[in-house]
Amino acid sequence: MPIVTIQMLEGRSDDQKRALVEQVTAAVSETTQAPKERISVIIDEMKPTNFGVAGVRQSDQ
Amino acid sequence: MPIVTIQMLEGRSDDQKRALVEQVTAAVSETTQAPKERISVIIDEMKPTNFGVAGVRQSDQ
Amino acid sequence: MPIVTIQMLEGRSDDQKRALVEQVTAAVSETTQAPKERISVIIDEMKPTNFGVAGVRQSDQ
Amino acid sequence: MPIVTIQMLEGRSDDQKRALVEQVTAAVSETTQAPKERISVIIDEMKPTNFGVAGVRQSDQ
Amino acid sequence: MPIVTIQMLEGRSDDQKRALVEQVTAAVSETTQAPKERISVIIDEMKPTNFGVAGVRQSDQ
Amino acid sequence: MPIVTIQMLEGRSDDQKRALVEQVTAAVSETTQAPKERISVIIDEMKPTNFGVAGVRQSDQ
Repeated sequence: MPIVTIQMLEGRSDDQKRALVEQVTAAVSETTQAPKERISVIIDEMKPTNFGVAGVRQSDQ
Repeated sequence: MPIVTIQMLEGRSDDQKRALVEQVTAAVSETTQAPKERISVIIDEMKPTNFGVAGVRQSDQ
Repeated sequence: MPIVTIQMLEGRSDDQKRALVEQVTAAVSETTQAPKERISVIIDEMKPTNFGVAGVRQSDQ
Repeated sequence: MPIVTIQMLEGRSDDQKRALVEQVTAAVSETTQAPKERISVIIDEMKPTNFGVAGVRQSDQ
Repeated sequence: MPIVTIQMLEGRSDDQKRALVEQVTAAVSETTQAPKERISVIIDEMKPTNFGVAGVRQSDQ
Repeated sequence: MPIVTIQMLEGRSDDQKRALVEQVTAAVSETTQAPKERISVIIDEMKPTNFGVAGVRQSDQ
């Protein structure tokens, strides 16, 4: 705790995901004063067929 | 915002998922007055091995 | 199952929330063929201090 | 309802997941008095590339 | 990790919630072999106005 | 999208939460290349009675 969940479309590289976990952890630690060891980050990747805005899926645009 | 997440067993067709996103967005917009452009819908599909009711997974029924 | 979670800012009336649950359930049932009795809807209301877009919270706009 | 979601790293056997759903349902029913028939359990498995603690992903350790 | 989230209607006593966290943690540890120290449990309580099955909220029944 | 959810114990100040949303958005945008306008951040605050590690709630420690 804190537990951070990031929902995003699939397609980012492994390097991007590594940096994402590292930098989000740093931002949470700095602003909440929680020690980094207690911060978990989960990346939840979605397919374009399973996400839509305004009623239209990404895969249908 | 609003953000709608729909958790369901995998197996629906692409047409069903397209209609699901479209019609849920319409229902949320009509009842909450949120403009459609601000409504996101996420479909989170589960495997029968990873969901159970009453202590028994779908895959064990 | 399906389980539908709707995250939105607080402030809708009780009538709006009643209609939201009713109409979203209908939309999910119609498009996925799941019987209504198996569809759950959760409304998760957020405070303007706890939600932001583009780095700015609703309460700071 | 109750709805229990268990997020964990992938890699458990099918037998472990079956026992997990069974025993968590029993624990929830016993402590909350909810009948088992109304308890759902979702297992959400994550890849080591998509989970990190202290800013470092499992896949990078 | 594992992270367990339990969504349920509000109204359980503090003793019930204490036992819930304790016994669910034990069930998860025993079946997944995860050490207890790494298991987090979150209780997410809902109001009857914010949860419905079959299109009808608990508060409207 | 991306949608970031931060679960943490209640008790942070309004200034901390403002900075949290701002800096997490910046970290996500920089590492994923998503424009800030498309990044949402949700803060989900928990009570010490509703969160536990190793089977013991924060409120019981």
